[in-house]
Amino acid sequence: MQSLLQSRRTGTSMVFTLEDHQKEEGLLKEAIHRAVQCAQMAPNHKRTEPFSFLQIMNSSSSADQVAEIAYQVAARTRSVPVARKKKEKWSQIPAFLVTLVHKNQKAVLSDSSSGGSSSSSSRSDTVDEISDGTFEPLPYAPPETERQLEDYASASAAIQNVLLSLHADGIATKWATGPVICTPAFRKLVHAKPTDRIAGLIMVGGMDSTQFDSDKMEQITAARRRRRRDVDGDVLQSLLP
Amino acid sequence: MQSLLQSRRTGTSMVFTLEDHQKEEGLLKEAIHRAVQCAQMAPNHKRTEPFSFLQIMNSSSSADQVAEIAYQVAARTRSVPVARKKKEKWSQIPAFLVTLVHKNQKAVLSDSSSGGSSSSSSRSDTVDEISDGTFEPLPYAPPETERQLEDYASASAAIQNVLLSLHADGIATKWATGPVICTPAFRKLVHAKPTDRIAGLIMVGGMDSTQFDSDKMEQITAARRRRRRDVDGDVLQSLLP
Repeated sequence: MQSLLQSRRTGTSMVFTLEDHQKEEGLLKEAIHRAVQCAQMAPNHKRTEPFSFLQIMNSSSSADQVAEIAYQVAARTRSVPVARKKKEKWSQIPAFLVTLVHKNQKAVLSDSSSGGSSSSSSRSDTVDEISDGTFEPLPYAPPETERQLEDYASASAAIQNVLLSLHADGIATKWATGPVICTPAFRKLVHAKPTDRIAGLIMVGGMDSTQFDSDKMEQITAARRRRRRDVDGDVLQSLLP
Repeated sequence: MQSLLQSRRTGTSMVFTLEDHQKEEGLLKEAIHRAVQCAQMAPNHKRTEPFSFLQIMNSSSSADQVAEIAYQVAARTRSVPVARKKKEKWSQIPAFLVTLVHKNQKAVLSDSSSGGSSSSSSRSDTVDEISDGTFEPLPYAPPETERQLEDYASASAAIQNVLLSLHADGIATKWATGPVICTPAFRKLVHAKPTDRIAGLIMVGGMDSTQFDSDKMEQITAARRRRRRDVDGDVLQSLLP
């Protein structure tokens, strides 16, 4: 277990490696199903069950739209060739999983009565009313209450379970955030309610090449450990042992 | 792997089950060390490495102070016998792990320049200046920027790795939040900087009894699955398959 927890890395080359495209997609769907079953078992405070996942397979028109949004967002700040390259790259990704965190109305009500902040509610409640700026990322809106922040924590733990389950199945993943998921176009595509937060776009790859190249794997892990701080001292400290 | 991901549950009876107290603490420390190594490998956006863990063993005076804070917080709103019972319960917990999320100054600066909200910074920056209300939970302060929210997501994924690693070692855990960690007294005890967020207090138990009672385990899992929504439909949906 610990070796799997420690060996998972963000995927870099997300391509199908099996020849039979349809067969691979079937396997991928099964693996995604197992991963979401694992996500469901992540801890959640007060049993709010706050998250859901949306699956977008490469062969769908929705996947084409995701790549198009990535293109439009890149074209806003980068050159057209750079944006085209990005679209081409995103078009190769075998599957996406979108993680939505839902606003628990009951929980929000009980939080409000205990004095939770709600100063920014007007912003997130009008997200879908914006008609222009389809490809312009919306500004950051913080979780309004402690409950909403904890629901986001639960979704993050659930995403980690998804990544680990897919890794155990030898499938590469990348938990992406960034401007694409913040656009009205993307929110519209995934039918996000104005009160939903998109916690991430999980890129789901084909075979996880790191699992089949132990030398490369060891290099990556060693480099990461060097870059990261020490467990004893910086990351794990004792209080009055 | 998937069976471990799906079988982890929040612990309920956190007691030492081995007779040799010192030996158990040694094993527990080793398991905690392994767990934090796994935490370190959780994904983090922009390599901010934003979290750290603080270990409080049952035998320390710091653990006594945690139990005392739990007592004082309970006594504010509940009866003294109820608060005493809570203190007694917390005094039995073999170890605590406190998860701190640090504010990345560099990241905050770059976020501010892109228009991040900072309306609530005055609150969190003055946490440690509060001299009275030592046992009064501080009000909710949202993450001020997208980067801070993503650092909290990384810490949440790291906590999930800690829970899973300890579960793989047969040790019960509970990821607690609640009023205790929001008090100035607790923040002072764990040396939290005014800009640190405490993402959770992880109660680390002795043996995980659910691992050794498969009948009970199956009952719990079945009940949880009934309570939770279906993977197909509510939790996992397809977009234009």
